[in-house]
Amino acid sequence: MKKSILERHRGEAHMEKIAHEHKASVYLGIDWGGTYIKAGIVNSNGKILKKIVYSSGSLRERKAFIGEIKRLKETFRKYNIKAVGVGAPGIIDVERGSIYYLPNIPGWENFPLKTILTKELKIPVFIDNDANIFALAEVRRGAGCGKRRAIFLTLGTGLGGAVISDGKILEGRTSASELGHVVIDINGKHCGCGGSGCIETFTGSNHLLERYRQLKKMKTAPKEVKEIFDRAKAKQKEALIVWKEFSAYLGKFLAGMVNIFNPQIIIFGGGVSGAFSLFGPFLWRVLKEQAMWPQLADLKLVKAKLEDAGIIGAALLAKEKLEERK
Amino acid sequence: MKKSILERHRGEAHMEKIAHEHKASVYLGIDWGGTYIKAGIVNSNGKILKKIVYSSGSLRERKAFIGEIKRLKETFRKYNIKAVGVGAPGIIDVERGSIYYLPNIPGWENFPLKTILTKELKIPVFIDNDANIFALAEVRRGAGCGKRRAIFLTLGTGLGGAVISDGKILEGRTSASELGHVVIDINGKHCGCGGSGCIETFTGSNHLLERYRQLKKMKTAPKEVKEIFDRAKAKQKEALIVWKEFSAYLGKFLAGMVNIFNPQIIIFGGGVSGAFSLFGPFLWRVLKEQAMWPQLADLKLVKAKLEDAGIIGAALLAKEKLEERK
Repeated sequence: MKKSILERHRGEAHMEKIAHEHKASVYLGIDWGGTYIKAGIVNSNGKILKKIVYSSGSLRERKAFIGEIKRLKETFRKYNIKAVGVGAPGIIDVERGSIYYLPNIPGWENFPLKTILTKELKIPVFIDNDANIFALAEVRRGAGCGKRRAIFLTLGTGLGGAVISDGKILEGRTSASELGHVVIDINGKHCGCGGSGCIETFTGSNHLLERYRQLKKMKTAPKEVKEIFDRAKAKQKEALIVWKEFSAYLGKFLAGMVNIFNPQIIIFGGGVSGAFSLFGPFLWRVLKEQAMWPQLADLKLVKAKLEDAGIIGAALLAKEKLEERK
Repeated sequence: MKKSILERHRGEAHMEKIAHEHKASVYLGIDWGGTYIKAGIVNSNGKILKKIVYSSGSLRERKAFIGEIKRLKETFRKYNIKAVGVGAPGIIDVERGSIYYLPNIPGWENFPLKTILTKELKIPVFIDNDANIFALAEVRRGAGCGKRRAIFLTLGTGLGGAVISDGKILEGRTSASELGHVVIDINGKHCGCGGSGCIETFTGSNHLLERYRQLKKMKTAPKEVKEIFDRAKAKQKEALIVWKEFSAYLGKFLAGMVNIFNPQIIIFGGGVSGAFSLFGPFLWRVLKEQAMWPQLADLKLVKAKLEDAGIIGAALLAKEKLEERK
């Protein structure tokens, strides 16, 4: 059946758009998580054009991971990929582009990922810590759009953190910004990092579930933090105590960060941030009691906004680092 | 009596040097403290050419202070002063150049010092917090010379702090970097800032003196921290406990700062830093236990070096801010 002229015109315009996209500079962003690896082609404006999601189970080994990234570049060969960005779940030597260690993925200690990937892919590669990457995405295209000074927290099993200072990821030779490992209680319990009393030990989801179990004198803790959130919304006493304690610790910690960084915004991501509507007002109260008032003047507390912050942030890191070189 | 030719030559060379100094661009640096105000003419290399010290008692009022700065410029009229830098003992709005408040000097709340001084002096004026100014001086000309990432602490009655990130004073709309007001003990006592549990409440000289009194079961505390230092050097048990506790708190706090900033150096200034040779090794032990090892790789702990960091830093701030404008 013949197409109408209008349909043909539409088709041509579509093909031209694709051709244009394929010629325009794009960036491959890789969000490397413990459960999933997400990859995407992102344009200069931070828009995802193509996206692939892998279960990361089979890609925990270095050889498999690097092989898959190579295939990925081949899959997207029609695009004009200028650089690759990787957000990795651990502590990174961002100057050298090598991995110190990934707390949940063994076998990567001191691996020179940037050097190896650059050699294999034959285009520039940039690597940073995943929380830093999320924060970058949120201040470029998300909840903190255009902000020069931001604190980003991933509230989940642990407490991931990142700082945007002077409009960029806080500078370090390492990926630093390990906000979860700031001591809030000199007498606090052991932390996974090797220290003790870190804020992460009071805000992690396992701590919240266990604290709720204690207060309710239950045999087993609930499975998900969402249950404690739902019960607190229904004004259940013990559930409210859990969130008030959570806010007291997080608020006192954040007051210190506010006194140091004078941020314009604090952005909350991760599973536990689902309860933001509940703990947000508690947090504000603690912040107002604890932080120095001039540091609070411009501050906003918000939930993270982007669904694919890991892909977008990694791609924008690659773009910006490439531009810095010029 | 006639001068010899050699003497005449020397005299001319000296006069020429002075004439050159007077033509060369210099900066007026003002170190504004609770007890003294120190002012100096500083050349582009951070060298002090002239210095004046005032007792600040009679200059606590705004009118007297501003009048004296005007006279100062007149006194140094032979110099080619390009800009004035002021290090002020409080929280500053560095964008506007106005003072939020000075904890120990009442009457300056919300005062637009930069605007007033610029109008009176008819040259550019820049203002920042005194600890930020000290830190800048130490990384340009002192103990942290050339470092891009540094933490600076003034250990005294309080705990003043500053951060050098990316080679500059950590950016904020306010002077921020209030490291003394980071919570280290969720159950800690009231702090002068209005909050509670701040690290300053555990490291301030009054706390150390009182702690020593408690341990020794004395009626009155010693007058000076130096006494506790001297007794600890003589291996006195209670004095050693004071410094070990001090190091436990300061070390746990600094571990958090190291995890955030990945500094190359931590510089200790202020009266209590006189005991650095004693508490330095204790601090290292705590840092190694508490901080994440990749963040410690490049770190050095040192004592501050410059005698007139306040004057030099204020002058260099003025120089660098002026250059940024161009």
